[in-house]
Amino acid sequence: MNIKEMARSAKKAALELAAASAELKNDALQKTAQALLENTAAIIKANEADLARSKKANLAKPLLERLKFDEGKIRDVTDGIESLIRLPEPVGQSLSVTELDRGLELHKVSCPIGVIGVIFESRPDALVQISTLCLKSGNAVILKGGSEAAETNKILAEIISQSAIKAGIPSGWLQLVETREDVNEMLKMDEYIDLMIPRGSNAFVKYIMDNSNIPVLGHSDGICHTYVHSDADIEMAIKVIIDAKTQYSAACNATETILVNKNIANKFLPLLKQRLEEVNVELFGCKGTLEIIDIKPVPADNWAKEYLDRKVSVKIVTGDNEAIDHINTYGSGHTDAIITADKATAQKFMNLVDSGSTFWNCSTRFSDGFRYGFGAEVGISTSKIHSRGPVGLEGLLIYKYMLTGNGHIVADYAGKKKSFTHVKIK
Amino acid sequence: MNIKEMARSAKKAALELAAASAELKNDALQKTAQALLENTAAIIKANEADLARSKKANLAKPLLERLKFDEGKIRDVTDGIESLIRLPEPVGQSLSVTELDRGLELHKVSCPIGVIGVIFESRPDALVQISTLCLKSGNAVILKGGSEAAETNKILAEIISQSAIKAGIPSGWLQLVETREDVNEMLKMDEYIDLMIPRGSNAFVKYIMDNSNIPVLGHSDGICHTYVHSDADIEMAIKVIIDAKTQYSAACNATETILVNKNIANKFLPLLKQRLEEVNVELFGCKGTLEIIDIKPVPADNWAKEYLDRKVSVKIVTGDNEAIDHINTYGSGHTDAIITADKATAQKFMNLVDSGSTFWNCSTRFSDGFRYGFGAEVGISTSKIHSRGPVGLEGLLIYKYMLTGNGHIVADYAGKKKSFTHVKIK
Repeated sequence: MNIKEMARSAKKAALELAAASAELKNDALQKTAQALLENTAAIIKANEADLARSKKANLAKPLLERLKFDEGKIRDVTDGIESLIRLPEPVGQSLSVTELDRGLELHKVSCPIGVIGVIFESRPDALVQISTLCLKSGNAVILKGGSEAAETNKILAEIISQSAIKAGIPSGWLQLVETREDVNEMLKMDEYIDLMIPRGSNAFVKYIMDNSNIPVLGHSDGICHTYVHSDADIEMAIKVIIDAKTQYSAACNATETILVNKNIANKFLPLLKQRLEEVNVELFGCKGTLEIIDIKPVPADNWAKEYLDRKVSVKIVTGDNEAIDHINTYGSGHTDAIITADKATAQKFMNLVDSGSTFWNCSTRFSDGFRYGFGAEVGISTSKIHSRGPVGLEGLLIYKYMLTGNGHIVADYAGKKKSFTHVKIK
Repeated sequence: MNIKEMARSAKKAALELAAASAELKNDALQKTAQALLENTAAIIKANEADLARSKKANLAKPLLERLKFDEGKIRDVTDGIESLIRLPEPVGQSLSVTELDRGLELHKVSCPIGVIGVIFESRPDALVQISTLCLKSGNAVILKGGSEAAETNKILAEIISQSAIKAGIPSGWLQLVETREDVNEMLKMDEYIDLMIPRGSNAFVKYIMDNSNIPVLGHSDGICHTYVHSDADIEMAIKVIIDAKTQYSAACNATETILVNKNIANKFLPLLKQRLEEVNVELFGCKGTLEIIDIKPVPADNWAKEYLDRKVSVKIVTGDNEAIDHINTYGSGHTDAIITADKATAQKFMNLVDSGSTFWNCSTRFSDGFRYGFGAEVGISTSKIHSRGPVGLEGLLIYKYMLTGNGHIVADYAGKKKSFTHVKIK
């Protein structure tokens, strides 16, 4: 099949899949989990081929770690499928009900979006998570994984697609595309694909937006901030910052810039330097910072740097407004935190910082679908419409309005013979 | 100001406006309504200039009707503002609350999108409705109206913008652009504009999508269907179809195609012809239809025709699946209805027809924000993400996650020392 045929086939499947029952979808998920376990040996063999090829190509060690898909990881993803099965059915829920007039009832009902295109990095577990989330939410999915994981992706896609089809899910619901040229073709399929979810750098997400009419749910850079207000509990601030920077530095929700209120800079900065250097974090400061502690200046005065490493920028701000402005100017709308004992200041910060997640007295590392209790996540959206922050099942749904009458016509209301009641039932 | 300066100024205003209190916004709306009434004479004078110029340019009569903005229409829009004031505050509502662990609480809180760009046709009342909806929802707005209404739009934008600013809304919150070149510049401002709402033809909405990275909420053609099932109450079907076609033929929610189940075609079609011709509706049929009633064939076999007139296409379908397929192929995802006495058939139809609104035993003309009880509408979305169907205040909102802790760090949970409770509070 060429990409157009694949996309058309996915669309056809999506239209049927929208009406699949909870039982059917859960049965398909169950069969998928079972098939993954039964095929453990074959999956590991395919993954070993990917690993061998990637080692030869000198892929960096952290990337090899992500690419590895062993028995433990297979067990993790099947555990994930089991929890997905236990989640309540997301489709067909009446989100609100209004009586427009006697016998004329309007239901706002959750439904799948249709066909989702997902482009993801070289983590085979992402393929399993995304495709099973799509299945549970009744969406068809077209996947493009990293080329390093080609063999692993192929066998996983085949197992998942076929197990679901055996259970009764319409064929065509899962498609795997393999090359970059395929992706470029995919971007033209706005007739068939309803939403693109690209996971990658800002530049990559922008490339997708520049080259497609399909709506994009961007999962891009995380330039996260932690702002230490003058009323902060200093020990709490240090503890939270160490977590936000070092618990997993390569994550998109790790803090990249620390903003320090000038009123506590003299007291706080020397301690910050000492404690961060103890855990091997390198600090880069603004001019004012350099007058208080002996660190390097921020390279090229670039305050939008995503280090993804044990490095952090530090800036003194004159007050809350400057902190908020700085974040809204240089941040990426991902996750930003304030450390303060003052509730009013915290609320102002959380209201005015224009990010998907705004935190008070806790680590930016909490910004994650699993930690938020969503069960699983498709990505973390830095977009401003549809879905924001960590995106779970809900982000793969939209709604339609269903109106049920008994021969009701508009002319009766236009002539004021009748009037709407608009009684909210739910 | 050039467009970039305007967009930047709108963005700045939006960041402040996000934290405006309900009282401040309602006061601004009150002052706006008052100023519109006080300036009635000047508004009518500006509108008369637009009308005179448009008459000279031979603008069609229905368009002149829409352009006219007299005392009655001013009263209508100020009444609309009064109802908007009475609606509950949409911003800052906790949509859901989850305890992640003791003392670590996650709130999903409604908030404005930011800067909305709206391109609308030559109805001055649209300018008032859209800008006051944006104000109530805390969004800044950049407006481009039809050039026929240039003078009326100018004075309305000035009155609304200034009344709100006098009440304390940040200046720059409302901007009016005037030329098509301005629109093309606007489309490049993805750094500042968060959402475009173009109201117009499919071709126009597609033009906007083709030429911008800004997410688009499309308000485009309505190719709406009414499907008469074999179990339909014939009299109800006729009554509903007459309303759906003639109550206001130029509306996007008017029915453009009637699908008739073959089992009742012989009985239903002659009656349909007679009753529709009585109200001056011209019928165009498929091959099978022409064998039963004497009407013209559908021009150029085009089943995606939006007549916006007292004309309608008629097609015989062999069953429910063909009806659903036809609608999903030729419809525009706007509004489609089934007439049937059978509940299971109706539910299948409403689930499988992939449109923003799916109706059972009522007129497609009900698809409208006012009738749905939203108070006002920005447009009717035929998009598949963010907002679907009639879009009221809710479509201008998104959410952010606010997490409040007490020095909580992720390392405590990664080490399994602590585990998440994920207790749903709301």
